[in-house]
This record gives sequence, C-alpha cells and structure tokens, in this order.
Amino acid sequence: MTTKPTLSIGLIGSGFMGKAHVFGFATAQKVFDLPVDIHLHTLADITDDAAARAARDFGFSHSTSDWRTMLSNPEIDIIDITAPNALHKEMAIEAIAAGKHVYCEKPLAPTAADASEMAAAAESAGAKTQVGFNYLCNPMLRLAKEMIAAGELGEIRGYRGLHAEDYMANANDPYTFRHDPEGGGALADLGSHALATAEFLLGPIAEVMGDCITVIPERPDGRGGHKPVLVDDIGRAFLRFANGASGSIEGNWVATGRKMQHDFEVHGSKGALCFSQERFNELHFYSAGDAPGRRGFRRIEAAPDHPPYGRFCVAPGHQIGFNDLKAIEVAEYIRAIAGDQPEPFSFRDGARIQTLVETIQKSSATRRWMAV
Amino acid sequence: MTTKPTLSIGLIGSGFMGKAHVFGFATAQKVFDLPVDIHLHTLADITDDAAARAARDFGFSHSTSDWRTMLSNPEIDIIDITAPNALHKEMAIEAIAAGKHVYCEKPLAPTAADASEMAAAAESAGAKTQVGFNYLCNPMLRLAKEMIAAGELGEIRGYRGLHAEDYMANANDPYTFRHDPEGGGALADLGSHALATAEFLLGPIAEVMGDCITVIPERPDGRGGHKPVLVDDIGRAFLRFANGASGSIEGNWVATGRKMQHDFEVHGSKGALCFSQERFNELHFYSAGDAPGRRGFRRIEAAPDHPPYGRFCVAPGHQIGFNDLKAIEVAEYIRAIAGDQPEPFSFRDGARIQTLVETIQKSSATRRWMAV
Amino acid sequence: MTTKPTLSIGLIGSGFMGKAHVFGFATAQKVFDLPVDIHLHTLADITDDAAARAARDFGFSHSTSDWRTMLSNPEIDIIDITAPNALHKEMAIEAIAAGKHVYCEKPLAPTAADASEMAAAAESAGAKTQVGFNYLCNPMLRLAKEMIAAGELGEIRGYRGLHAEDYMANANDPYTFRHDPEGGGALADLGSHALATAEFLLGPIAEVMGDCITVIPERPDGRGGHKPVLVDDIGRAFLRFANGASGSIEGNWVATGRKMQHDFEVHGSKGALCFSQERFNELHFYSAGDAPGRRGFRRIEAAPDHPPYGRFCVAPGHQIGFNDLKAIEVAEYIRAIAGDQPEPFSFRDGARIQTLVETIQKSSATRRWMAV
Amino acid sequence: MTTKPTLSIGLIGSGFMGKAHVFGFATAQKVFDLPVDIHLHTLADITDDAAARAARDFGFSHSTSDWRTMLSNPEIDIIDITAPNALHKEMAIEAIAAGKHVYCEKPLAPTAADASEMAAAAESAGAKTQVGFNYLCNPMLRLAKEMIAAGELGEIRGYRGLHAEDYMANANDPYTFRHDPEGGGALADLGSHALATAEFLLGPIAEVMGDCITVIPERPDGRGGHKPVLVDDIGRAFLRFANGASGSIEGNWVATGRKMQHDFEVHGSKGALCFSQERFNELHFYSAGDAPGRRGFRRIEAAPDHPPYGRFCVAPGHQIGFNDLKAIEVAEYIRAIAGDQPEPFSFRDGARIQTLVETIQKSSATRRWMAV
Repeated sequence: MTTKPTLSIGLIGSGFMGKAHVFGFATAQKVFDLPVDIHLHTLADITDDAAARAARDFGFSHSTSDWRTMLSNPEIDIIDITAPNALHKEMAIEAIAAGKHVYCEKPLAPTAADASEMAAAAESAGAKTQVGFNYLCNPMLRLAKEMIAAGELGEIRGYRGLHAEDYMANANDPYTFRHDPEGGGALADLGSHALATAEFLLGPIAEVMGDCITVIPERPDGRGGHKPVLVDDIGRAFLRFANGASGSIEGNWVATGRKMQHDFEVHGSKGALCFSQERFNELHFYSAGDAPGRRGFRRIEAAPDHPPYGRFCVAPGHQIGFNDLKAIEVAEYIRAIAGDQPEPFSFRDGARIQTLVETIQKSSATRRWMAV
Repeated sequence: MTTKPTLSIGLIGSGFMGKAHVFGFATAQKVFDLPVDIHLHTLADITDDAAARAARDFGFSHSTSDWRTMLSNPEIDIIDITAPNALHKEMAIEAIAAGKHVYCEKPLAPTAADASEMAAAAESAGAKTQVGFNYLCNPMLRLAKEMIAAGELGEIRGYRGLHAEDYMANANDPYTFRHDPEGGGALADLGSHALATAEFLLGPIAEVMGDCITVIPERPDGRGGHKPVLVDDIGRAFLRFANGASGSIEGNWVATGRKMQHDFEVHGSKGALCFSQERFNELHFYSAGDAPGRRGFRRIEAAPDHPPYGRFCVAPGHQIGFNDLKAIEVAEYIRAIAGDQPEPFSFRDGARIQTLVETIQKSSATRRWMAV
Repeated sequence: MTTKPTLSIGLIGSGFMGKAHVFGFATAQKVFDLPVDIHLHTLADITDDAAARAARDFGFSHSTSDWRTMLSNPEIDIIDITAPNALHKEMAIEAIAAGKHVYCEKPLAPTAADASEMAAAAESAGAKTQVGFNYLCNPMLRLAKEMIAAGELGEIRGYRGLHAEDYMANANDPYTFRHDPEGGGALADLGSHALATAEFLLGPIAEVMGDCITVIPERPDGRGGHKPVLVDDIGRAFLRFANGASGSIEGNWVATGRKMQHDFEVHGSKGALCFSQERFNELHFYSAGDAPGRRGFRRIEAAPDHPPYGRFCVAPGHQIGFNDLKAIEVAEYIRAIAGDQPEPFSFRDGARIQTLVETIQKSSATRRWMAV
Repeated sequence: MTTKPTLSIGLIGSGFMGKAHVFGFATAQKVFDLPVDIHLHTLADITDDAAARAARDFGFSHSTSDWRTMLSNPEIDIIDITAPNALHKEMAIEAIAAGKHVYCEKPLAPTAADASEMAAAAESAGAKTQVGFNYLCNPMLRLAKEMIAAGELGEIRGYRGLHAEDYMANANDPYTFRHDPEGGGALADLGSHALATAEFLLGPIAEVMGDCITVIPERPDGRGGHKPVLVDDIGRAFLRFANGASGSIEGNWVATGRKMQHDFEVHGSKGALCFSQERFNELHFYSAGDAPGRRGFRRIEAAPDHPPYGRFCVAPGHQIGFNDLKAIEVAEYIRAIAGDQPEPFSFRDGARIQTLVETIQKSSATRRWMAV
C-alpha cells in the first residue's frame, strides 16, 4: 500500500467561512481521489481559548492565538485566511514570504492595487493561491464554459449577468462594515460574482460603463442616530468583451424577494444558454440546430455526465448543494498545489475582479466608458 | 330599445396589421359593452382590385384605391393607418386636418420630431389618437401598475426591462427596411416596448445612458452582394426615473432562442414583481409582508379579478391571447373617442417613446448620459 | 370574383356559451380561409324580447322565442345548442330529424345511453355534429398527437392525465345543478376533458378502474339548510389503452389553488412529453436521442410551425388564448360540413366520453375493473 | 472543557452507499452540535485487503473481513449495514442480539414479514434503528408536514404523489437483481419513497388499490438470451388515509426524461402545497386566505427559517444537496441514540413501507381494494 503525501493546513479564523473551509477540506478528501492527504494542522484565533475550542470542534491538531507562529512552522503547507478583509493583505504577504501557499476568502483585498501586490508576491515566490469564488465550481457553469468554447453556441453575441439578493433591502437594518467604502458595496460584494462568471464564460472584459447607485442613503448607526451610506446598493455595467461580444451585469443587494439571483443568459449565432443560481443544478440550452417545430430551451439537469457531479451523486437529478461547490473548489486548489493543474481562481484572478469592480466604480463616478 | 351611435372606420392597408386591427374591432364589439357601434366603412389599398377584395374579406362596406377620398367622406370618423411607416406622417396629418380621429400602427414616425409634429396636430385639432402598443393592455400589466401605484411594493428602488427576440438572429437573412436607419433597429423596434412598459409602470424617465450595438455588420442585399447594416441589433440603456428609481432596459432582436422576452422585474422596499411576456397571463408577486418562512414569489394567474380579463373568460386560468390584447386596445380607444376616458396610448405617448429611443441612440453615439 | 356558399346558423341560448360560440364563428371567419361564409341567421331564447335583444347584440338577422320554428326554416343549416343540458337530447334529435347539422355544448347528454342515441340519430341521418371539447383544438396538443403518431416518442409506456380546478373547493358555496347526479360531478365535468385528451393522444381506452369520492358531503341549499351531495368531487381512474399502454387520470374540482390544471405527461421508449393547460402555448419534449449531457425537457413555444397557430399570430411566442381554441373548433366543424374533413369531435366522440365516465363511475361503485 | 461521549461505528460494506454513510457521519459531525462524538471504528468487507483499503480511505481505525467480529466488540455501538439487501436481515438480527444499534440501508428486507421480524427484534432489545429514507429529511418536506399539522391548509382533501425516474427505461439494459421478485420492482424501489412521503405528511394509509405493470417483459440475460421480468416497471395505487383524505401515488422507473420526479401535491380546504424533488429546495404554497386578485402559488425557497437548513448555509437560497439530506438523517439518528428524540425512520417505519408495498402488489394481483 502506497502512502500519499500530506498537505497541512493552518487556518486563520473560525467563523462561518472558517467552518465552511473545513467542511470543504473534509468533503473534498472524502469525495475526490486527491493525490495528497489533507491534514488539519493548526487553527489560529484571537485568544488561546477560542483557538483551542475551535481546533477541537473542527478537528485541528494544534491551536494558537498568534497566527505568525504558523508561518515559521515547516510542517504547515497552506495558510488559509478567513480573517476580516482588512487583514488579508498583511497575512497573505507574510505567509507567501514564509514559503506558504495561501488560500484566502473573497474579497482578496479592499483595493485592486493591494490585490495586485498580493498576486505579484505570490507569483514571484511561486506560491499557489486561491480566492473563494466557488460559484464557478458548479458543474453546470463548467458545462456552459465548455459548450461556449466548443462552439456549440456559435459566435457569441450578447450577454446578461446578474447577482441580486435582498439581504440589505431593509432600510432599518444597521450600518455595517459592508456599507463602508472599504467594504465596497453591492457591486464589490455581489456584482463581483457576476463579473467573475462573465469572464469565466466569455473571456476578458475590455471596456466598461458603470452605473452605481446608493438607494438607501443612510442607515441606523446603532447609537440612536444615522450614518450616511457611501457605497452602492445597485451597481450596473455595460460590458465590451475582448472577443467582440457585448453585455451587461448588475450587482444588487436590495432586490426584494431575491435570495440568490446569480443568473446569466448568453446568446450566440447557433444557440443560447440560460442559468439561474436559484436552481443551480440546471442549465437551459437552446439549439438553433434542432428540428423546426421542435426547438426550445432544454432544461439539462446536473448528472454524472457533468464532472465532477458524479463524485457526489451516482445518479442524475439528485442535486449537489452549495457546500459541495466549496469542496470542488478545495479539491482543485489541492490538485493545483500537487502539480496537476492550474489554480481554479488564483490571487491574480481575484485581483482582476477587483480591478473590474474599481473600473466600473470609477466609470460610474466619471460617467464615462473606461478601458479595463 | 335604444340605438347606439356608430363610429365608422376607414382603414388604410390590408396586410397583417390591417387584418389584426379588423380582428380587434370585431372582438372588441363582441366582448365589450361599447357605448357605440363600430362600422367597417371603407378599406383603402393600392389598387381598386386589392382594396375590393380585402374589403369583402374583412367585411368593409366600401373600398377605394385613393385613401384621400376617405378624408372628405363625412360618414367616416376614424382613419386607421396600417400603411408603411414612411407614409404615417403624411396620412395622419391630412386625416387630422380633415377632422378625423386617427389610429396608427407603431412606430408612429421614423423621427421624434415627426412624431411630435403629429401629436401637436392632433392636440390642436382635438383629434383622438392611438398608437398600437398593445402589450400595455394586458390585464396583468395593469395589475402591476395598480399595485405599484397603491404602494403595495413600497418605495420603488430598481427596475429591469427587456424585449428580446431572435427574428433577426440569422446573419444570412437579407437586408430589409428594418435595417435601414429610417427603420430604427432593435432599440426602436423592440426596445420601444421595453421603454413603454417602464414608463407605464414607473412614470417618466428623466435621464438615459445608451449602448447600441450592431452585431451583424452586413446582410445579403438580395443581388448576390452584401449591404452594411447601420442600425443596432442590441440596444441597452441605463435609466433614471423622475421618481428617483433607477433601472435598465434592453432591446435585442438577435437573442437566439427568445421569441417574446418582453420581461420586467421591479423591486420596492416592501415587495417585488416579476413578469415575462412568454407567459403573459401570469404576474409574480413577492410580498415582504408575508409571514417569515412563508415568503416567496406568488404566481398570480390572470382571472376575472383582473379586468378586463373577465370579458374574455368567465373563469380564472383560461388565458387570453395576443389578439385579445388588440381588442382591449381597440375598446379603450373607442371609449376614449366616445368621451369616457383618456386615450390609452395617444400620438403624444408615441412621440414620447420615439424621443426616448432617439435620446438613447444619441447617448450611445456620444457615449454620454443624456437628459430626456 | 367567385362567391362562397353560405352556412346559416340557428343558435339556441344566449348565455355565456352562446356568446362564446358567436365569438368562435366570428373569429373563425376572420382568421381562416373557410370554404363557406357563416351567416348568423336566427337566435332563439326564452322570450321574444330576450331573443331580439341577444340577436341584435350578437349580430343575428332574426330572433324567435320558439326554437322549433328554426327547424322548419330551410335557410338554416346548423342548429347550435347552448341551452341547459337537460334539453340537449330533445333539441338535437328533432334538429337532426329536420335535416340540420347540430353543434352542441358539452356534456352532450346526462347519460351515455342518451348520448349514443343522439349519435346514432345523427349518423343515420348523415348530420354533421360537434361537441365542444375545445382543449383538443390547441395546436400544441395536435403537435403532441402528431409526434406520438410519428413515433417520435417510440413505444408508449405510461400516461398521466389531470383536469383539476378549485371552483367547487369552498364548502360554503351552495348546492347547484352540478351537484345533482344528473349533473355528473367532477369526473363528468372535468375528468371528461382528461379522458378526451388521453384518447386523443393514445387512442382507445379498453379498461378502467375508478375511484370517485365525495369530499364535501353536503352544501347549503339556499334556504338555510343543507342538501347532501351525491356526486364525486374527485374522480380518479387507472387506464388500460388498447395499444397496451397504461395510465391514470384525475378529475378534481376541489383542488385548491388550481385554476386550469389540464395536464398530461406521457413516456415512451424514445422520448416524453409534458404539458399543462396553465401554460397551454408550450409543450415540453424530452428526446432520449439528444447528445449525452445535453438532454433535457425542451420548452417548445407555440409558433407558426404548429398549425393553425400562424392563422392567429405571424410570429412565435405571441400566444393564442382560450377563445381562439373555440374559433379553431368552429373552423374545423365548418370544414367538416363543407366536406373537407371529418368532424373534430362528433356526437359519437361525445357519447364515447360519456361512456368512459359512466364506466369509471360504475367501476368505482363496484370497486372492480371494468371493460369499456 | 467537557468531553462528549463517543459513539463508535462498525460499517459493513464499502460500496456507494457505504461511502455515502461515511460522508453523512462526517458532515453531521461538522455541521451539527451533536451530543456525542462519532468514531469510525471498524469497516468490514469481503476480504481483508478490501476492508483494509476501504478503512484507510474512509478513515476507519480498524478493518475486518468477518463482520461478526464487530458484534462481539464492546467498543462498537452502531452496526451500519450497507451490504446487499439479501443479507440485511441476518446481519441486523444478530447485531441487535449482540446489543448493538442498527442503521440499515433501504429496503430493510425483501418481505414485510422479514422486516417486521427485524423491527420486533429491535424493539424488544431496545435497539435504536434507522432505515435510509433520507428524502424525508429535507427541510422543505418538514415545513410541509408542519404546515399541514398546524392546519395552514385546513382540512386535507386530496393527495397526489410520485416517484418516477428513467434509469430502467432502456429495454436493452440487462436483467439485474432489481428485476427479480426479491428485488421488488419499481413500486418497491421508487414507489416506496412516494408512500413514505405520503404517510409522513398525512399519516397512516388505511386502504389501497394497486395497479402494477411490467412494461418491458424481458431483458438481456448477459449470455445472449433474454430473461423474463416478473416485477413491475410502473406501480400505481389509489389511497385512503385514516384521516379521511384520498389520494394516489405512482412509482415508475421507465419514465423517460425523469431523473428525480419525487413530487407531491396536496389540497386542503384552506390551501395547497406543491413540491418536486427536481427542485427540492423549494416548496410551493397556495393560501386561499391571500387577498383576492393576489392569490397564487408562492415559491418558498429553503432558508434558515426552515431548520436545519441554517446549519448548512447561513443565507437563504444557497441550497443544500442530496448528500446533506443524508447528514441530516445521520444527525437525527445519532440524537435518537443519545436519547434526545425518536428515531426519524426506524425499522418499524421501514417494515410499514414494506407492508404498504406488498399490500399494493397483492391488491394489483387480485384486482381488489385491500385494507393495510
């Protein structure tokens, strides 16, 4: 019996995303034939007690209240950052300098400049990096990408993308860090997903025209007063892709009634695709090549035909869940480190999205089209 | 038994739209308790023969190859123009001058200036006018308008509108008058409906930023060569409404797979509506006031609760068809002439849409936001 | 110019269905190139006044309070019966004896024996007859029938049919003639449509097992008391078709929330179809022959590819309405009389449905399978 | 820091279901605050090598090729049986006799008699048992059950249930153990889920009328010949519930195009619910109490309002997957053992389903209604 090499994880943070990452590591290990074993080595949190408790709950062997101690530990291969956004850059840069691979939750950094700096550091150090854009790991999105690349839609002509939710729709909900310019607003928070999906499917965006709007101008400050909101609640953009296609996206967190409207529709000369994250185990495909009188959007249900769905369910139609997308992301990142394939969404990709967001914001502020 | 007064129609043109109008007159008369009787008086077409044959088929009492003879006939009350677009202005202006009411197919005129001139002529003459925007006659759109006006959605925050079809998606289909700048392109042809619906629901649009794109740059000219296409195949716009809400629309005639995607979604502080013309007997309503754990978009099916649906079907769920929308349009226009109510979509309204379209086109050409 | 022959109608009854028939005659004439002209000759109603008023409103040339006078009038070709069900048989038999063609609203008669007698009378007299099962006139149902007949689904294996509504769901609504055994109950009223569609698509049903249930045992009698309900509110059946396939249907008028759930799903060895009258301009088609990973139910939208849709709308996706189905029914009946084709749903067909309903009811009462 | 007690698992079998169970144990532990720790103690398989390899891959501490050794090991608390169906009874009875709790994949046993014997053994020994009916663990099914129990639908009147797939639709696929009478057929395999859901929602079924059909009469025997199929490909039943409601179900494994049509619709006097496993993160709710003109089926999306969804995703609309249902099942079983609550689906429940299946099969064979 051969033994697989081991990759050891040092996790920073034990909140919701920390838990989700641990879940992803565990599921990836169980579901995929990974070329390595994943070892949950050390968990770092604010206090010794918190770290020890989380380490025990999450199955880590060690814990610490000083994340820097993990950097000097040669047993640890990957630093996984789920700490507050403001700390991402410092942690990542130091971890890369210490020779670690780095997995970081989105957004990578508050500014494109910071994100680019992080990407450059990783590249020059040869670190493998990952930002958590797990919607892209959906087998149906990969199917869409493959169909487009294979020419099943013909020449691509138009694109519409969305990511709309309503979790900020209540004007009486208090001001949070997300309403701070550093937090970024709806375009940065949700529109970033719409942008990532757009480039995932159609390739680079070359030019944008933005329209960012603050719908709820102030929110309760938690001390009886109100605080002005400076970020957008709705961020729209017209897009020009490098391949000549045009399109639009919208990020919106005041879209009452919508919980996960991460949707797209793309039209080509020979066919079209329509997708909604609200039913993300489906992809709707129209083929202009079907027989006359028999054409229509086909509801393709996720099935073992659409890897890696079959890793989760041996039969079609059973459906994978949101957390399974995280496991796919982890598995591909682990494989990238093991050398089999490129990272699914590296710091460079994360910096790219940040650049798109900022360019759209600037375009909106100046009311002019801008090249990306 | 009292006798109703009669309104007599002089129809110009006997093509598809002419037939649809006659169908609308007949159905309106049968379905509604109109305050007048409609009499199909004279049909005008290019030749005496064509006019006579169409008059017989359509049930008109008289026919002529000279539409101007109808203007001097005191028995005729309404001139109904379904002739080619280029002739609309001349015919309408002369008919108004002759004291007639005028019903005209869309688009009212190739330019906003012409359309405004026609509207002004009608207004100074006291003529009742109508442009055929019959999607607005859908009981479910009226329900939407009422719900918004009544505050059921709360303060309106965001709007998305569409009208996408694929009837121009085949690049091998020949150049037609619609590809001529006079014809207007996808924004003028289909986007105009999206704009009409947007203003119908939310009131005036104050400012626009356009993005008009020619996707298929040339088309067969029918003589073995190709002719460049100068109009847009996709026309998008960002919108600012006078009420403070923002939104976007798209007109698209190369949207492969889409036959009638005249859709909208509108989000308010208390609820949302979602609609697709592909299933135009439904309106989807989300109420944030529903009990927790029981909220969701409700699929409201057209029913006698939604006038004038009950005129067509006594029971819910039976569904009206596209031609029934035309009958509603006719009925309301007839009532407007009889004095009961304002015209549902007058020349002034038609000119307004033309102005919106042109402003968006100019905005696209100059790449700048423009006030309407 | 050639003149078409004329078929003259004598209508009995001016209620909702009478109006719907007139609407059907008018639309059929306008929409189709019928081989004859339809003339609305005489309308018969209870009193002279009622008849005269309705004749005027509906466009009939004459009126009468004695329907029998129409039978002796050689100018009248078709007697159209929309009088109460209890009178259908007497009227139809006399009209047939007088040499008329007869169009009769459903149900043809309260019992299969009566209905068969009516069918036999028509056949021996050579009268062309029609019962109003207009759902079958839907272009998408015809498409389904054609696809099945052409083998596009392969060998047919299983069928599920429904017709469920909720118009009797309120237990406080009063007892009506429909709750009387003569009225028939949900199976007779709605299940009859499900049965008609099943045989329309798959051919004759050979054997049935019924399950008929009274859910609301008594209803207000309008005089402060209650009256027991003896008919079924839900009627279900297992089916064996002569072609070897099996299936089930349900008729249900207490299906809260359902307005027009006239649905079916049929599975063959090579494909499947799924349909709902709630969206009757769509047919969903699954082809097992599509490429692996690209299979799914296709939403085919009604289009000019699906005759006679194109008679109503020149473009796909516009959608026909319930009343247009009536116009198609009328047109085909008129053509049958003119000699071009068989009647779409003759008295014999109507008697067949009545036989199926009664056999299911008896099967339910005896709790045994019965041959039809 | 307090230490939780540990429950140790002895797993028999390492195929797909074995893997799914291990996945369930791991996820349950990570996602829920279980009152105990789960320890993967020993894995038993046919050979020492197979067992050792699977134990290593799945994370078990020990392995064996003799499952009986686990029974005598006092460290092991739960025997988890994913071996072939024919062995379930022997293994379960011996494990119970050895004082173990037993978790067994469905079907519990080929006959109701065997299953009942297993249930009786467990009950008299006080063993906690579980059969894998994980569709019932869906938060949206639990919501449905709660709404019905709370009277939100009023008095229940009618029910339709389904479980249809197409994995046996290809007549050229070979004969398998599932086509053997011991295997049970479509009703036993899929219809059992429809029956379980029906009783989960509405309580006990009192009487049934079955209709079981073999559609593909013989299948390739793998040796160039064919073997007759004696089990049903489609199994239907009429149902009478003890609460007075009536309904129907269908189990079907030749339903071309359907991958997971585990659906139901239930109508009450005040409301209705509609569900499809194809989109199992949604429940559609119609409330007759909504305002007139505003009624319609609401698409409720799974959210933290619907426990235990929030354990998997902190935000609505993200969607759980099929494997998450397994984790919920495991968690509840573990809690039942720890004493907090009844087993979610015990051997008694499994025997009940087997009884229903057999009664329907007998009813079909004798063509008579039968009490359960």
